[in-house]
Parts: sequence; C-alpha cells; structure tokens
Amino acid sequence: MFLEVVRSQGLAHLSYIVGDGGRAAVIDPRRDWQIYVEIAYRQGAQITHIFETHRNEDYVIGSLELAGQTGADIYHGWQLPFEYGNAVREGDEFQLGEINLTVLETPGHTYESISIVLADTAFSDRAAAVFTGDALFIGDVGRTDFFPDKAEEVAALLYDSIFQKILPLGDHVILYPAHGAGSVCGSGMAAREFSTLGYERAFNRALQVQDRDEFIQKKVNEHHYQPPYFKRMEEYNLKGAPPLAGLPAPRPYGVRQFAKAMEDGMTVLDIRSPEAFAAAFIPGSLAIPLDMLPAFAGYYLSYQENIGLVVEKRQEVALAVRYLNRLGYDRVVCYLEGGLTSWETSGCQYDGIPAVYAGEIKRRIEAGEEFTLLDVRSTREFTARHLRNAFHIYVGDLPEHLDRVPRERPVTTFCGSGQRAIIAASILKKNGFKQVEDCLGSMEACDAVGCPLAGDDAS
Amino acid sequence: MFLEVVRSQGLAHLSYIVGDGGRAAVIDPRRDWQIYVEIAYRQGAQITHIFETHRNEDYVIGSLELAGQTGADIYHGWQLPFEYGNAVREGDEFQLGEINLTVLETPGHTYESISIVLADTAFSDRAAAVFTGDALFIGDVGRTDFFPDKAEEVAALLYDSIFQKILPLGDHVILYPAHGAGSVCGSGMAAREFSTLGYERAFNRALQVQDRDEFIQKKVNEHHYQPPYFKRMEEYNLKGAPPLAGLPAPRPYGVRQFAKAMEDGMTVLDIRSPEAFAAAFIPGSLAIPLDMLPAFAGYYLSYQENIGLVVEKRQEVALAVRYLNRLGYDRVVCYLEGGLTSWETSGCQYDGIPAVYAGEIKRRIEAGEEFTLLDVRSTREFTARHLRNAFHIYVGDLPEHLDRVPRERPVTTFCGSGQRAIIAASILKKNGFKQVEDCLGSMEACDAVGCPLAGDDAS
Amino acid sequence: MFLEVVRSQGLAHLSYIVGDGGRAAVIDPRRDWQIYVEIAYRQGAQITHIFETHRNEDYVIGSLELAGQTGADIYHGWQLPFEYGNAVREGDEFQLGEINLTVLETPGHTYESISIVLADTAFSDRAAAVFTGDALFIGDVGRTDFFPDKAEEVAALLYDSIFQKILPLGDHVILYPAHGAGSVCGSGMAAREFSTLGYERAFNRALQVQDRDEFIQKKVNEHHYQPPYFKRMEEYNLKGAPPLAGLPAPRPYGVRQFAKAMEDGMTVLDIRSPEAFAAAFIPGSLAIPLDMLPAFAGYYLSYQENIGLVVEKRQEVALAVRYLNRLGYDRVVCYLEGGLTSWETSGCQYDGIPAVYAGEIKRRIEAGEEFTLLDVRSTREFTARHLRNAFHIYVGDLPEHLDRVPRERPVTTFCGSGQRAIIAASILKKNGFKQVEDCLGSMEACDAVGCPLAGDDAS
Amino acid sequence: MFLEVVRSQGLAHLSYIVGDGGRAAVIDPRRDWQIYVEIAYRQGAQITHIFETHRNEDYVIGSLELAGQTGADIYHGWQLPFEYGNAVREGDEFQLGEINLTVLETPGHTYESISIVLADTAFSDRAAAVFTGDALFIGDVGRTDFFPDKAEEVAALLYDSIFQKILPLGDHVILYPAHGAGSVCGSGMAAREFSTLGYERAFNRALQVQDRDEFIQKKVNEHHYQPPYFKRMEEYNLKGAPPLAGLPAPRPYGVRQFAKAMEDGMTVLDIRSPEAFAAAFIPGSLAIPLDMLPAFAGYYLSYQENIGLVVEKRQEVALAVRYLNRLGYDRVVCYLEGGLTSWETSGCQYDGIPAVYAGEIKRRIEAGEEFTLLDVRSTREFTARHLRNAFHIYVGDLPEHLDRVPRERPVTTFCGSGQRAIIAASILKKNGFKQVEDCLGSMEACDAVGCPLAGDDAS
Repeated sequence: MFLEVVRSQGLAHLSYIVGDGGRAAVIDPRRDWQIYVEIAYRQGAQITHIFETHRNEDYVIGSLELAGQTGADIYHGWQLPFEYGNAVREGDEFQLGEINLTVLETPGHTYESISIVLADTAFSDRAAAVFTGDALFIGDVGRTDFFPDKAEEVAALLYDSIFQKILPLGDHVILYPAHGAGSVCGSGMAAREFSTLGYERAFNRALQVQDRDEFIQKKVNEHHYQPPYFKRMEEYNLKGAPPLAGLPAPRPYGVRQFAKAMEDGMTVLDIRSPEAFAAAFIPGSLAIPLDMLPAFAGYYLSYQENIGLVVEKRQEVALAVRYLNRLGYDRVVCYLEGGLTSWETSGCQYDGIPAVYAGEIKRRIEAGEEFTLLDVRSTREFTARHLRNAFHIYVGDLPEHLDRVPRERPVTTFCGSGQRAIIAASILKKNGFKQVEDCLGSMEACDAVGCPLAGDDAS
Repeated sequence: MFLEVVRSQGLAHLSYIVGDGGRAAVIDPRRDWQIYVEIAYRQGAQITHIFETHRNEDYVIGSLELAGQTGADIYHGWQLPFEYGNAVREGDEFQLGEINLTVLETPGHTYESISIVLADTAFSDRAAAVFTGDALFIGDVGRTDFFPDKAEEVAALLYDSIFQKILPLGDHVILYPAHGAGSVCGSGMAAREFSTLGYERAFNRALQVQDRDEFIQKKVNEHHYQPPYFKRMEEYNLKGAPPLAGLPAPRPYGVRQFAKAMEDGMTVLDIRSPEAFAAAFIPGSLAIPLDMLPAFAGYYLSYQENIGLVVEKRQEVALAVRYLNRLGYDRVVCYLEGGLTSWETSGCQYDGIPAVYAGEIKRRIEAGEEFTLLDVRSTREFTARHLRNAFHIYVGDLPEHLDRVPRERPVTTFCGSGQRAIIAASILKKNGFKQVEDCLGSMEACDAVGCPLAGDDAS
Repeated sequence: MFLEVVRSQGLAHLSYIVGDGGRAAVIDPRRDWQIYVEIAYRQGAQITHIFETHRNEDYVIGSLELAGQTGADIYHGWQLPFEYGNAVREGDEFQLGEINLTVLETPGHTYESISIVLADTAFSDRAAAVFTGDALFIGDVGRTDFFPDKAEEVAALLYDSIFQKILPLGDHVILYPAHGAGSVCGSGMAAREFSTLGYERAFNRALQVQDRDEFIQKKVNEHHYQPPYFKRMEEYNLKGAPPLAGLPAPRPYGVRQFAKAMEDGMTVLDIRSPEAFAAAFIPGSLAIPLDMLPAFAGYYLSYQENIGLVVEKRQEVALAVRYLNRLGYDRVVCYLEGGLTSWETSGCQYDGIPAVYAGEIKRRIEAGEEFTLLDVRSTREFTARHLRNAFHIYVGDLPEHLDRVPRERPVTTFCGSGQRAIIAASILKKNGFKQVEDCLGSMEACDAVGCPLAGDDAS
Repeated sequence: MFLEVVRSQGLAHLSYIVGDGGRAAVIDPRRDWQIYVEIAYRQGAQITHIFETHRNEDYVIGSLELAGQTGADIYHGWQLPFEYGNAVREGDEFQLGEINLTVLETPGHTYESISIVLADTAFSDRAAAVFTGDALFIGDVGRTDFFPDKAEEVAALLYDSIFQKILPLGDHVILYPAHGAGSVCGSGMAAREFSTLGYERAFNRALQVQDRDEFIQKKVNEHHYQPPYFKRMEEYNLKGAPPLAGLPAPRPYGVRQFAKAMEDGMTVLDIRSPEAFAAAFIPGSLAIPLDMLPAFAGYYLSYQENIGLVVEKRQEVALAVRYLNRLGYDRVVCYLEGGLTSWETSGCQYDGIPAVYAGEIKRRIEAGEEFTLLDVRSTREFTARHLRNAFHIYVGDLPEHLDRVPRERPVTTFCGSGQRAIIAASILKKNGFKQVEDCLGSMEACDAVGCPLAGDDAS
C-alpha cells in the first residue's frame, strides 16, 4: 500500500496517488502527468482510477491526458455536464487491493465537489483518511465566492459538507486537501502539511464558529480575487483541455530574431529576479519572477498571443513552460538566447527601475515629499494596515486601472516585500510611465524601520 | 515547516527530519547520513537537533557521524550511560521555528525509550504528531523480549507508556513510528504508512486487550529472534560507532585474485537472486539475496572476516555495502569483477542446487518418499501450519544446528516462498551436504497446489 | 562548439550531435530521440539538421520523429527513393556557426552511403573530423554482403570510398564512425573509441592490403549473418517508421492474467540472466538476457505477436522496451508483476536447465559418452576451432534447423561463454526437447580446462 | 577500453580518466575527486595510477585525496621536490590492460612538465593519443611567464618540447591538453575540443613560426596576469593540499547573524548576476558572478578570512563552494538565508549601481562630458582598441591601484561585456567611491552603436 503527495509549486496544488495490489488511483492530476506514471511504475502499479474532486478553476486538470496514457477511468461529481469521464454519487465505492475508496458529496466550493474517503480494509471499514479537495484545508476552508448570486446558499452547503459529512468521519482521520499554504484558494492555510480531522475540528480557525450562521456570514464577507484566466480553466476543465503532447519546446532566439518577434506582437515575459529586472530590462517587457508565474501570469497573459521568455539561466525555461502550461498557456515560442546579456552587448537599449530603500520612503513621507506610493497588495492586506498617503490598486487589477495613476509625478510601486511591486513597475513602464521606482523590501522593510502608517497620529 | 520520512529498505527503518524557521531535527538517523543533509539543504535548514528514541539493537545509528558533519546536538533517554550526546527527561522541550518538540518517557521496548511530541505552535500547544520509536507501530507494538528476566516488568512498562502517555495525547495525533511493515521489530505491522493514535486505539490488534494483564500476558508469550549481531549494535549504539568516512570502496577482483582471497579466509557473499544462485555458484559461498541482506546478514557474518561480493550487476555493490554498513559490517573488500560469468568462463568449478516444484513435493509426500523437507521458517510460522513430515530449524539458527540434519538423504530446503530456503541451501552446501534442493515457491506454492499438511487426515 | 557521442548499448550504435552558434546537427539519430533534444537544450542550441549516413538495416532510425519534434531538416544520399527528407550529393555544404559540414559520397556498404566532413572554419577549411557511417570503423571496415549479386562491385566501391575519398582527407582527421566494438556490423573493431584516419591507415587490419583486388577478395569471402528483422528495418528506414509517441507502457500482469495472455498467443520473453533462467523458467518462454536483446531479438520475434516480459527487477522493463523499440518491436504489452517469484509461489509449474561445468564436458568427451554438444557460435568462430564432436548450428538459425538436432539423446548447448547457449537451450525446450543442458562458461572455460579440440591428436 | 574527459567549468580545466582491463589512470585530477571514482566504478575499473603533468598554479590538484581514497600511486616530473608521490623520467612506462602509457619530458611551461603518450597495444606500440598538460593546447601553447629571469630559456624549452618531442609522435595522434577555451592559461584556444597533432601542426597559430627564434620572441613578448592565489596553489601542489573531507557545509545565516559576522570581519561575496547586484546589494560586499568565480576569486580573496555568500538560489551555494575549494578557499562559513530579499525586507540598507547603456556612453563622449570611463579589461584587450579617453586599470589589479582613480567625478566601469565591470564597480563601492556606474554591454555594445575609439579621427 502506498500514498504519495505530488506538490505543484506556486499553485500550492496537492495531488495524490494511492494504490495497493498493483492498482492505483490519482486524485486531481496536474496537466504534466508524467510524475504519476513514474510513481506508479516505481510502485509496480497500474493507474486505473482518476478522481477529480471538483472542476478546478485555477489550473488545467490532467485527467484526460493521463487517462489517454494509462487507460484509467475518470470520475467526478454528477452535478456538472462534464464532456468526458463518469459521474459518481454519494456512496459509490472503488476497490484497489485492500484500499476502499468511497465517494462523499461535499458541495460548497462548487456544487459538484466530492471528497474521497479511504479505508484500509485489512484493519477496518472505517475511514483512515479523506481527500477533501477544496472543501476543507489544513487551517482553512474552501472559497465560496464563485456563485455571487448564491453566496449564502453555497456557504451553507460548505458548512454542511464539513460539519455533517467530513468531520463526522472521526477525529482520527488524516486529512489530504487539494491545496497547501501559498494557494490562491485560501489564505489561512497552515505551513504544516499534515493534519487530521480532529486537529482541524479543534484548531482550524475557520471552524471555530458558534453556529452555521456565523460560518455563513464569515464566508459571505470574505473577499477573493478571480484572475481572468479562471474562465478559461473552467471551460477547459468542463470540456477537456487540448493535449500537451507534441507541443514543441521553445526555441532559442538571437537578439535580432527576438526583436523581430516583438515587433510582430510577441509578449516578452521576463522571469528573472526583481533585482535583475530592476537593473536592466527590455523596454516593453512584463516582469513576473519565475516563482510568481503560477499565481500571477493568469492576470496578464492572453491565450492568443505568442510569448517569448527572458530568463536568468537556460534551465529555467522548462520550469516556466511547465508553469504556463498548467494555466493553459501553450504558446511559449522562444527564449532570448544568451539572456539579457546578449541584449546588452548587442547595443540595444535597455531600461531600468531604481530601487528605493524603506528608510528613504520613511524620509519622504515624513518630509511630505510629492510622489505616488502605489500599494498593489490585496484589499485585505491594504485594509489591515498601510503607509500614510498610500494609494491602492491591486496588482492584478492594475492594467484596467492605469488611468487612476497620476503620470506627472514619480510612482513608487509597493507591496509586501517588493516582489509584486516589480510586476506593477513593469506594467507602468510598459504603459509609458516615465518615473517609476520599486520599493524592494516594501511593507516588511517599512515595518522594520518604522514608516508612518495611515491612521498614526500625524500631527 | 516540513516533515519528511526517510525509509531504509530491508530494515523497514523509518527516520524523520522535521524543521521550521531554518532549523531542523532528525529522529533516529541512519548511519549513511547524507540524505538528511541533502533534505535540510533543499529545505534551507540547518540540522541542529538529533534525537534517538532509544538505543537501537538492529542497526548502527548515525547520530555521531551526522552531528560531526552538522554540529547538531544529540539527545537520548537518561537511563542508559551513553558515551556521547545529552540525556533528556520527561517534559524537556525544544523549539524549531513554530515547531515545539517535547520529550515523553515511554519505556517498555527498552528502559530509556522516549517519544517526541510535535506541536505546531502557530495553531496550538497540543500535539499534532508523535514520534514513538519502537513503542507503538502502525498495527503493532514494540518487542519486549530484550530483558528476559524482567519480561513482565517491561511488558507492563510498555502498556503504561502506550495507554497512559501516548494514546492520551488524543485521537487526532498523527503517528510516526521507527519501523514499518517488514521490520524484524514486529510482525503485525500494517502495509499502510499513515495512521493516527485514534485509528490505532480502535484498530491496532495489539491494543485490543481487556486489561493490562492481558496485554502483559500476550507480550510475554511472544517469540522473537535475536540475531547475534544485535550485541554489536547495542555496543556501538551505546559507545558510538566507528566513522564510515574514509572507508575505501570495495575493489573489483579478477577470478584469480578473488580465489586467492577466498583461500586467505574471505567470506564469499552472493547477493544474486535465489534462481541465479541455484543455477551456479562458487563452492563455499553464502547466499543472501540483496533484498534480504538487512534482515539476515546479521545471523551469519562475523565482524572479523573480510567479505567479497558476487553480484548480478555492478550497481548492486554500492547498495549491498550500504546495507552491510548499516549493520556495522565495514570489511567488504572486493567484488568479483565480471560477476559469476567470469568465474564460469575461467574454467573454475561451480556448483548448483536443483529447484523443486511444489507439485513434485506433493507427489513425494503422497508417495511417502524418503527425503528431508527442511522448513526454515520461524517457529510462529511453522507452528501455525506446516507440511506433513516437515522438519523445522529456523534459518537463522541453522549454522548452530547442522548436526540435526541427516546427511545421508536428500534435503529440500523450504520456507514461505523460496527465498530463505536458498540461504539455508547455501549453508548446507557450504557445510558439505551433497544432496540439497530448494523448493522455489515453498509454502505459498504448496498451498496453491494442495500439499498435505501435518495434522491433515492422513489415513 | 560542441560534439557529443550518443552510444546505444547492445547495438554498439554511435550517433553524434555537433553544433555551434545556437544550431546543431544530429548524425544517425536513434528512435528514442529525447537525448538529442536534451543535449541540444543543455548546449543552448536548436537542432536544425539531421543526417543519415545510409539507410540502416540494423535499427530503426529516429530522423522522422526527431524532425517532428524540432522542425529540423533531414538529409540522406540520393541513390535511394526515400519517402521523406532531402537528397544530398557530393560537395553539398551546411553551416552551423563556425562549423562547416560537407557531404562526401562513400558508397560500398550501401549505394547511398555518405560521409560528413567537419571543418572548423575559425582555423581552416580543411577537415578536422569525418563521420563515416558504416564505411570505415575503428579497426575494421563496413560489411558489403547486402547485395550478393554484386559482391565484387560493392566491395570495390567501398575500397574506392575509403582509399580515394576518406583517407585522402589527411592523417590528422578524427574518425567518427556509426558503430563501435560489439556491433553486428563488423567483427574486427577496436575496443578503443578514438582514432584518426592516419592511425587507421597505418594500423587498421582491414586496410593492410596489397592492392584493391586483395581488399575486394577479402570482403567477398567474409561471412555475415542477416537476422530476419533487417528486412523490416530496411522498409521502415526507407518509408519512415511509425511514431513511438503514444505507445502505452507495458502493464504489470498478475500470474493469472499473464498465463491467460500466453494462452492467447503472447510470446514470453525472459530477459533475466542465463543463470536465473536456467534455475527456473516459465515453460514455453524464450530466453534472451537483457544485454543480448539488441543483437538477438531480431532473429526470433515477429512483428505480429504480443510480447510479455519476465524480468529480474522492474526497472529493467523500460530498458528492454527501449531496446525492442529500436528494432521496431512495439507490441510489448505487459510484464509479469512480482517476477518469476510470483509464478513460483502461485504453484504454477516451472522448468529448469541444468548447467554443466567445462570439466564435466571434458570428462564426457574423453570418456566418449553419448550426447550432442550443440555449438551455436558463428560459422567463423566454429571454423576457427571447436571441441571434438561438436555439432554446429548458429544460434540465429536454430529455429529453422531444429530437425537436425537429435531428440533422443541429451543436448548440451554451447557457445563462447554460455550466454548464447541459454537462448539456444530455451528454444530447444520451447520445441519439446526434454534433455537439455547449458554449458555455462562454454568455449572459454573449455579452453581453460583443456577440453579436446577437433583435430587434436585423438589417438 | 575507455577514455573520459572531466571538465571543470570556469577554470576550463580538462582532466582525463583512461582505463582498460579493470585498471584506470587519472591525469591531473581536480580536488573534488568523486567524479573519477564514479566513472571508474561505472566502468568496472580500479584507479591505480594518477599522473600530474606538472605542478599546477591555477587550482589545487586532487591527487593526494584521490590516492587516499583509492590506493592509487601518484606520479609527476622529477625536477621538483614534491613532498608526495613518485618521480618519473622520460621513457617510464605503465600498463593498463592493453593501454600503454609512456612518459615524455616536455618542459617549458614549467621545468618538471611531462606529457603522457597513450598506445593501444592491441593495434600498435605507436602513439594513438597524447596528454600534453600545459605544453600544447588546441589552438595555442602553454604560458612561459613563470620564470621571468629565464624567459628565453623556458620559451626555448617549450619550443623543443613541442617541435622535437610532441609533434614527431605523428600527425595521426589525438591531442588531450589540460585546458580548453576560457582558461587563464592561454588566450588563443579553440572552441573546438577535439584535435590532433597534425591539425595543430598545420593550423595552430602559435606554431606557425619561421623558426625557433621567432617562437621564443613571441613567447617572451606575451603578457599574462598572475593572480596572487597562484602562490598558494604552488605551495599546495608541491607539499600536498589539506583534505576536503570533513569540511562542514556552509550554514544558512539569518540577516542578523549575517550582519554580525560581517562586523566580525567576514567577507561578503555576492555571486548573483551583474544585473541583480547592480539593483541592490549589501554595502561592503564584493561582486563576483558565479561563473566568474574560478577566474577571478583568486585576485581578491585571502586565505585567512571567513567568507559569506549571497546567492540567487540556494542550489548555487554548493557550486560556489566547489569553485572556491578548487582554488583552496575552504572557509566559506555561511550563506544569507532567504537571499537578498531577506536583507531588503529586514529594513537593512542596500545600495545600487546604475547601469549605463552604450548609447549614453557614446553621447557623453561625443558631448565631451566629464566622467571617468574605467576600462578594466586586460592590457592586451585595451591595447588592441579602446574608447576615446578611456582610463585603464586591469580588474585584477584594481585593489592595488585605487589611488589612481579620481574620486571627485563619476566613474563608469567598463569591460568587454559588462561582467568584469560589475566586479570593478563593487570594489570601488567597497572602497568608498560614491558615484559609480556600470556599463552593461560595454565594449561589445559600444562597437555595435559606434562609440568613438581612441585614435579615431576626432576633429
């Protein structure tokens, strides 16, 4: 009997492969499916079942492609008209050697959400573990903001799923959710990757409510962002995504070929560190540091445009392509051979974004200098606390709200640590803003040096 | 926060590395310690603490070597006069970022046994998981046969440790024991590698007792084997084992050099499959298939003799050396270059052991033919059921009891599946028995074909 | 500038990837093409050219598949009507950065054979290296037995290609041939993998001839085997082979499923060591040890039948499949889960082949005992020297000549070392021979112990 | 028979392992010796011989450590009083299976330099290849500037070694030198890694001389740099370097611990890209991008000081440590956990160096603006051509000549492409220069945009 977790960095997506007796099931496979086949092979098992806990909105699910390679059957909740796979209902059971998997309908995050209960029949028919998808996380619960018209209804569904179906499985049951810390699917998640229903019942803050109404109220009042690419994910995951097999790898382009492709409309995506980008970048390029691609690419990239990468090391190309493929972006045509150095030595012009130290920000605010401190953190972060006179637009919303940013005075982009700020700075530059700075360190650094906060006594 | 399991195959030994905030603790490190440093490095942490749940008797613990490499501090129970490290007592606490580790004294398996309770202080001071060493396993409890004079006392201690200290931590607590299925440290262990205290309380058969006395009685009546190398392990793990660093890798020896070394007293250890050994082997060699080395090498090898390996593929040498090092056997001087083929083509004589099909065994028994069916399974397996007229000596005890095996008639070695039988066959051959066969398939195959059992109606 | 050799074990096939300035060319790619893309990626280059030195007869060339993945152009000699790629002629040139590649027509092995001359234009337009395909090897020259009607003509062509085109490039030119030691494409090849035209001119025995006529005569008198699969390779390599992409991996079959597939006509291919096979095998199976698959599978397997593998370790499955794919065998449907042990423990019958030590062979011959010593080495090996009374059928020809082997007395299969002998023994067993033995060690061992040779003074 | 090249990036150091018949020899092993043991193991051989072609001055040789691990014997030229190993003389021979290695004394680069001639005795006693150390490279010859008093003498020795000993081995002999393109040991080396004596005789520019005198004159007139660490290397390589085994890995330090170590005198070595450093760096740190460490660390680091790294990705730490160990720097105590981001978010001050585009340099020169263009390329590069009004100090000499750089006006550091310029910029900043810029792109970019050169018509 084996159970392995497959983590997809950035998305903080957790998928699972579990098996016994030469057969294996995969829960929520990602699009780059090879790893499941490798694990099954190593474990001497054949993947025979694929479960989707729900129609995911934040990544392309790999069920179809994995099924094509292995001959496995796909299962998901019955409430959506999926164009592939099989519908399951409460109580449906599946056997893999001594493992028994039973379907539990646990709507709330979406209507067709299911959980999968695992029992080790060598010991008992009772649950040993449960795969909860986006219903219950370690330290948080799933989002319920996808049906704005029915906000209370779905929040209530989630309450019932958790309190009347999942938790009653028993305190002793191990919890295997579909996301971990860092996901856009919940903000209270624990850094810890192991938990049980008993532990969550006692210590998960989202479950510490007086009653169903309090739970519903809290959920309804939450604010979440929905990047535009979610729409495409929902479509792909309902109808089945196009296959990855046969996608050509991006080619190395020399400076001229790269510049020519830019003229022809290619989007330049620079995945280097915020510092490297700040020092020198190709005018017109979009900065999204590699680690941030999964969470932010979906706000800015369209599915029609070709993408050309600027990377620090050639090895990063493959990972960037993988991250983009998971979001359905399959048109990465090239990368700049030789990196930015080749651009620099070609004599082509490059641009830069000065970095501003938190101490300087403090000085300016205290001196009352004229500049726009553009805070691009989330509404929740901004509302919690922000610097005096900070101006707020969420980084994901920036392209739609550029007209709100004054062009005539310097803009200093600002976020939690300086990472999102570089995305914002690159967008401003791309759109013709001249005086743009990036506060590397941002809020964390400002806290450390004691910058004046809004609401502080400013007399 | 991270927690990773490091499995040592064969010994079914489970060690753990857990960390947060740039610091990490290792529980029961193995002697080939590099993997912990690699994990810590990957996780960006520094190994600062090493815990030994008890003085292990079945492998060389790697604490000293790991501490030397990392500067970490070593901790173990106070009841034994360890010649290195620090003694801890009930309630001692250690902090790694948001992880809190607390010592629980859980004697029984040994007097100085401790468990380590893990709390995630970001959520609660209560236990989230517990490392139980050899006190409580998934599906079984620890052995209590190491103090024969105090059999009841230690069994009672184990009962109290489990029922009054470990289980009261709560049903929701995840269980991380020091051994998994396949270990010589317990026979009822689950194939499943994940469990909780609640699950074990309800479904672990060793815990389903009426009262303390029943538990004690069951433990006292158990039978376990103690391979001779345990004594060396106890000495090493009390005083500190010699370092592995600087041990030269075994050399490839040509046939002549190998034969010469044999004359000089080198033990030939053939780790090929039972089938390959059966077809052709160097006279005088000992067969222990690679996967069985961890469990069986300790019965037959001495610490004084040089060891020369016969392998199927050169790549197996490194794994075999690693397995032997874990048991403290550090004198693997060479392997036969070119494998057995080079022996065969050199014109040197080789020997063979005919394989006997279960159907033939059945025929012989039914026909009442004269032969010794030497069943080398454990007493427990043999007692449960065995073939009619089978003669029992445990494989580990065979060298001491060769005089009990009749030399004048054919001997067919026999076990559960034919693996241990090849060890036994090689020992007989090494000791001058002429007519030796091996029943590949053994008990499992005999069950399938319906061989007559002892106690069957034989009229 | 980079040049890397890609070796395909077993076939002793050597392919090359060479590049500069971001572009790369592959010479004679194998069917499992991923490694070229990996090298190009690591070197920061794009594969733009693929050269086939000739239509290969001993493996499936990977040009089409590699071109599909990379967009590279394929080039080969103009004399054959290839159904893909581009025809090249003497003097055609290609530029990759500072590398210049020039086509040299070098017929003989086949009519359309070409060599590719490499110059480093940073230093000179003269040749620095040459890729000679199957024209000139290190220590030997190519076979010229593929056009029996035109034996002298093609031998003469090869002479002219080597002496009038290749060698005149200069002693200083490095030689990169398409095969190394161990290939079925030549028997005198050096173990050394580096050489120059000057070294070969002086020390390659095949080139030490008085004149063109002597060369032709030697070539015409050579004897080579042509495994039946060569025909399929010629067809594939003229028309383009079916793609590998999308081939499902072989599945693990339990004993029952495996036995059922055998009943349905599946060929059982046992790739374990000769010793393991000898001790126990599934009746009806064909033995070809893993390392021998590339050279021998093509004699026995048909393209219509399903293949099921018996392996020692699960990891060997992937390599076996790769070896078989290179020969165009794409119907490996399964492997026996649990290996032969699962067969043994299921109670199913297995068979064995006793191994005979060379000393025993000597004794029998000297005693004049009745038995068939079936020597399955090549005609050349057999003709050179063989044991007294040995009976010769080449291992590849055995299935067609079974009627020549007497069934009523024991047969001992015999070869150079005992490897090919196990193939022969398995074929005899498969075809109902009852008394079959395998002489592990064979000719080498017999030489060592001094077995009587045919032609020895036997008075 | 096998021959593998082991490349050490950065140093462009080439070492070799060659073997046959189960024995292997290593030529000029590097200090991190594990790779040779791995290759020998994979090839089934035992390393029995280690040759040092000469006492290296640019890296720590790994002979002693490798010998300690394998029991191999070490050999080097007799003219230096090495404190370990064995002296060899012209004509000494060594046998490894069918390989014969013969010593050729080839002084010039150093007095005790030897070459090793390889013959494949299966074919001939004549040379098939030669390992030439630093005597003859592909496209260049060795430096002869280590004995300034005897400049002509050693140049003459080198001429004789090459023309009277090496080249006469024959045009057909393959050349295996100790360095490839990119080494500090020669500047004319080919990008190509394969060559023969015949090719070099004809096309190596350093060999295209009229006579011995012209060769000597050219060598005497060459200019090379000798980084200060060469002295330590000479000492280590004469007496034997301290062992690497047991060196603890660098620890992750948090910001405070790192800052504290800086106060205690630790040197901060920032190995990030020039761009990342330019945007933000810890005041007082030294910039040497990872790839440049092997060539430049030896100019700036002392053997007494502790070193703390700033890296982009944690994985770079191991490579940086390896690079530094090769130069004998064994005191890398830590790296900044969390990278520069942790420094930024801690609120600590960071500094920056603006990047200047070549077009701006052009504008300034044409406008006659006041600024110091500090060109840090080598004397040879600078002499060949440089920008108008450029001021020259070689990057390696900068610390000793800081007083020559005017402090009162802006300094723009400048090199070939902008890489060495960032080292220079960091040194200026470290030494209190306020207005420092870095011309990313530098000479290459200036050529592309057409900056005015010194000597251009400036009227």
